[in-house]
Amino acid sequence: MPNTILDSEHRGSDSEHKSLRLWLRLLTCSNLVENHLRAKLRTEFNSTLPRFDLMAQLHRYPEGMRMGDLSKLMMVSGGNVTGICNQLEKEQVVVREVCSGDRRAFVVKLSKKGQRLFDKMSVAHESWLVELFAELQESDTGKLMDGLGQIKKSIHRLEREAN
Amino acid sequence: MPNTILDSEHRGSDSEHKSLRLWLRLLTCSNLVENHLRAKLRTEFNSTLPRFDLMAQLHRYPEGMRMGDLSKLMMVSGGNVTGICNQLEKEQVVVREVCSGDRRAFVVKLSKKGQRLFDKMSVAHESWLVELFAELQESDTGKLMDGLGQIKKSIHRLEREAN
Repeated sequence: MPNTILDSEHRGSDSEHKSLRLWLRLLTCSNLVENHLRAKLRTEFNSTLPRFDLMAQLHRYPEGMRMGDLSKLMMVSGGNVTGICNQLEKEQVVVREVCSGDRRAFVVKLSKKGQRLFDKMSVAHESWLVELFAELQESDTGKLMDGLGQIKKSIHRLEREAN
Repeated sequence: MPNTILDSEHRGSDSEHKSLRLWLRLLTCSNLVENHLRAKLRTEFNSTLPRFDLMAQLHRYPEGMRMGDLSKLMMVSGGNVTGICNQLEKEQVVVREVCSGDRRAFVVKLSKKGQRLFDKMSVAHESWLVELFAELQESDTGKLMDGLGQIKKSIHRLEREAN
């Protein structure tokens, strides 16, 4: 992401508004977790977050996905998704098959090897998160989920009002 | 950012672990807020988040910053920072001056025009955040700050232990 600032909170000071401080802390946490996951994927699986995200998408659609739908869900440019798919196909992690409903189109799906690899990666991915959040009490997690849920709702409402 | 998934929570289900659900909610919120700010900067200032971040950095160093230091703080490639600086210089938002301590080096600083523009942008930026978080009670904000602070501490501790 072009504006990644790993620990953005150095930008805030006590005199600044609490909304700004909350946002900087949220951004900092999100970037720290993301970078931790990125580093773990690299060192333990020689992989990347976009590759893992793409495999996670395919895992949810075992019947396979068309490239266009995959790109939309990944919210990255079609070019990037195509590049990652080509790479994963070369490594026999995904396969391309003729779409059963439209013989001119192709779907991408995880191969058996890809499925086994994703299973290992997702177990590891979850264990890294458990480790990161280990010091949070059950009640803290609940409060965080509620507070973040409230922010989500506000944003969705604002966006609806703007359209 | 390569793994942007605007609302990542559709990936999680109830059967998945609470750590994973917390992370997906955190990522979703952070992406939603970031994209909201991005859209506001575009429509209200015809600007971008990397430009705003760069101006915010320069605002904190009124004596100016060397390109290398600016790049490090922005955590983006030197090329990107250079590109943004060139653009902002063309628009007379930043100026390049010979570094007083080292006559072979240059520092970048906000121009008077840039300072006035940043003042307007940062007031607006804060007001967008206040609007986004308006429905949070004071106590919710406190709990979020505490919970996120706890996550930050855990990550920093894990990273220290790994080194």
